[in-house]
Amino acid sequence: MGSENKKPVFEDILAAAARIAPYAHVTPVLQSASINELVGAELFFKCENFQRAGAFKFRGACNAVWNLDEQAASNGVVTHSSGNHGAALALAAKTRNIPAYIVVPNGANPAKLKAIEQAGGKITFCDNTMKGRDDAADKIRQQTGAAMVHPYTNVDVIAGQGTAALECLQQTPTLDFMIAPVGGGGLISGTAIAVAGKSKTCRTIGAEPSGAADAYESLQANMRITDIVSNTICDGLRATVGEINLHIMQERRVEIFTVPDQDTIEAMRLIWERLKILVEPSCATVLAAIIKNKMQFTGKKIGLIITGGNVDLDSLPW
Amino acid sequence: MGSENKKPVFEDILAAAARIAPYAHVTPVLQSASINELVGAELFFKCENFQRAGAFKFRGACNAVWNLDEQAASNGVVTHSSGNHGAALALAAKTRNIPAYIVVPNGANPAKLKAIEQAGGKITFCDNTMKGRDDAADKIRQQTGAAMVHPYTNVDVIAGQGTAALECLQQTPTLDFMIAPVGGGGLISGTAIAVAGKSKTCRTIGAEPSGAADAYESLQANMRITDIVSNTICDGLRATVGEINLHIMQERRVEIFTVPDQDTIEAMRLIWERLKILVEPSCATVLAAIIKNKMQFTGKKIGLIITGGNVDLDSLPW
Repeated sequence: MGSENKKPVFEDILAAAARIAPYAHVTPVLQSASINELVGAELFFKCENFQRAGAFKFRGACNAVWNLDEQAASNGVVTHSSGNHGAALALAAKTRNIPAYIVVPNGANPAKLKAIEQAGGKITFCDNTMKGRDDAADKIRQQTGAAMVHPYTNVDVIAGQGTAALECLQQTPTLDFMIAPVGGGGLISGTAIAVAGKSKTCRTIGAEPSGAADAYESLQANMRITDIVSNTICDGLRATVGEINLHIMQERRVEIFTVPDQDTIEAMRLIWERLKILVEPSCATVLAAIIKNKMQFTGKKIGLIITGGNVDLDSLPW
Repeated sequence: MGSENKKPVFEDILAAAARIAPYAHVTPVLQSASINELVGAELFFKCENFQRAGAFKFRGACNAVWNLDEQAASNGVVTHSSGNHGAALALAAKTRNIPAYIVVPNGANPAKLKAIEQAGGKITFCDNTMKGRDDAADKIRQQTGAAMVHPYTNVDVIAGQGTAALECLQQTPTLDFMIAPVGGGGLISGTAIAVAGKSKTCRTIGAEPSGAADAYESLQANMRITDIVSNTICDGLRATVGEINLHIMQERRVEIFTVPDQDTIEAMRLIWERLKILVEPSCATVLAAIIKNKMQFTGKKIGLIITGGNVDLDSLPW
């Protein structure tokens, strides 16, 4: 229950799916004939931009909120987040009628701030450093007794994020690959566990911005690299990969593809134009990775976790 | 079969639905809890932006193409269109492997031009007047023997457009209202016939830009008014309402609400932000009309035909 040490297993993802079912949307899987033609593969877009609060993050947050016992829950939950996780936790807390304290680094995306407020989250601003975030969240935890729900190292969060891939595998024919973006690693680690548990043949791939490729470098070096200064438009993918998340990726042999922002922006626009859906830059990394390496994917069936749709319409990247 | 005189009836819409079923998408109906809360009514968005070629127009075009006999079809089809109908007819012709000649007025939306080309349509430019369009289309018809498929007065087109409302009524609980944008009147007239045939209680409403309110004025004056110079960002709704379309609206007692562009732009942005889908300004008129008149709709169930998603991402209206 929220322990930061014990890695989640497939059964935890099945339990999470059952736990969040009353609150989370079953999101649709969309296809585009013209993108398939362009790539030479069959792509299945798992549209978590249609998830509640506009991102897959609601799955993990909701699982964490509802896996607290009554007494712990009554003090509420606290987290730090540059955006989607904060809004997701605030909304998840609302489904249980408990308070949510959200620590937000200065300079966060305004659209995401608005979403946190609309979901009833209590916002505290902090310096945009890991230490600034941790200190502010710790202080609130001590003052209120709220349970810390870390955006990606919390095991309930990891298990909850894994339900998106689980659901995708239930909605599609046998897939050869499942690909998800890599930020702190909550989604990719949950995805890797879900895919390994559900399919004998499907392989999990991560897509990471070239300008924030700490998970890629960590896998290469076989040790967690924490001194990379991120430089990417993918504001959901700037976090440094978590220890537990890296371990799960190593264990499950997740391969990571890196993509430059320019490719991501082009892929984002392609998704908007062909699928007629709003997606954040972060999610377009997965399509950019496939397009960039398309020889490897010819004729394959691929699930793509489209992570969220909370875009600031006043500052689009093209 | 394409006669411009005999008004279509409900059976024609049922026949159209069967005829286009192998080629057209069954589009989803989406809801937004936050928009429902804002409006105080239950809204069902019939998402024709997910239709093939990105708009409901594929339904009418496809019905017209597949209702031609073998010999007529072999000469192809011709139309004039500022955008969506042209791309739709080109794609519909492609499903039958026949040529499509599309007359496009100078100054048309580049995104829509690209869509016509991608679907294999043969483009001819003309002056942006009704006479310029008619003359250019007539000339092609005489040269090629292609069948004219007028964008909104053709009865097969009207019947095809009506299948969107029919499908929406099949997908939703009993609706009190169905609302669709009004341009030349192909969609609204088909919708009115479908709704009257399918439901005893549901009423059809039209939404028209204040700057192109010729259908509204025509209904008020009880005669077709053709001298209004359109001034609206809704590029799909600038056409003058057709004679047959106006007659059907009168017969079916369609009520029209007019909406200023500013309200339409706000409604468009609301749809993008809350539903995470791309929609054209034209479709946002329906939500703008409901918001502007929300006292009349309190507690009601309303179907909204979301007509298309072919937006030029380089020139968004906010």
